[in-house]
Amino acid sequence: MIILGIDPGTATTGYGLVTEDEAGEARLVRCGVITTAPGVPMPERLLAIHRELTALIRDYAPDAVAVESLFFGRNVTTALTVGQARGVLLLAAAQASLPIYEYKPAEVKQALAGYGAADKRQMQEMVRILLDLDDIPRPDDAADAVAVAVCHLHSARLQRLIDGAG
Amino acid sequence: MIILGIDPGTATTGYGLVTEDEAGEARLVRCGVITTAPGVPMPERLLAIHRELTALIRDYAPDAVAVESLFFGRNVTTALTVGQARGVLLLAAAQASLPIYEYKPAEVKQALAGYGAADKRQMQEMVRILLDLDDIPRPDDAADAVAVAVCHLHSARLQRLIDGAG
Repeated sequence: MIILGIDPGTATTGYGLVTEDEAGEARLVRCGVITTAPGVPMPERLLAIHRELTALIRDYAPDAVAVESLFFGRNVTTALTVGQARGVLLLAAAQASLPIYEYKPAEVKQALAGYGAADKRQMQEMVRILLDLDDIPRPDDAADAVAVAVCHLHSARLQRLIDGAG
Repeated sequence: MIILGIDPGTATTGYGLVTEDEAGEARLVRCGVITTAPGVPMPERLLAIHRELTALIRDYAPDAVAVESLFFGRNVTTALTVGQARGVLLLAAAQASLPIYEYKPAEVKQALAGYGAADKRQMQEMVRILLDLDDIPRPDDAADAVAVAVCHLHSARLQRLIDGAG
């Protein structure tokens, strides 16, 4: 099973591809960011994000996509902008008939660090430890995308245990 | 010249295709709405919107796309949802290499009704008169999409006059 975690944004969209080894441990396949320049018109930026996500899905054939559910407080402009990037990523997943799972930030923290109020550094360190990496994935958006992918792996494993016990 | 006006939303996306006749008068080619059911998951709804817009662009080969620029006040949830639909429509236009023009609501009102504070009924009546229709386009989202397409036709004509006089 390969999970594609995505942290959407128009300037920077983080992605992380995570799989399980034979022992059931999470392992990093690849992570990175899709960046678009601020001066480029929005439609072209969305086109670049869609194209690169579609290529990742084609090349790595993930079984599912995981994203953080969003909460913006009162920032309407950010909500609109991130909504546009998010629309394009949901479309790319739907076009590939991939299931999409959403996790609240606190759920991702709970799954990785064991408590829902873990801070950014603690989360990044947990990503490094859980995936047995020498260094924390960089930049932050890539690490966030890896984290939500690992969260889904854990959730899917738990679901299999529940199903198996049923 | 054919203009595709779009009024994006995840439940209902209005569209209006408008052209000019030989006398330079705006004429309606087609208008309608793309609707998606509330119970359907968001990725599938975005897929339906993208697929139908892509089909309209393929079938009618518009020269440009016109949309209203958005303002939501404080409604962050609406901004995120409409942002997702908007991302998909900007993508469909960019994939067809179509230029996209944005107009503020007051600009659309100014262009059609002559003043920026026209109300919804006045706007719909102006759409009917300008396009020489027997009835107001229905539903409202289709009429709104037609209005922004007509706004762009007017704006493009003005630009040609300015360029010609230069």
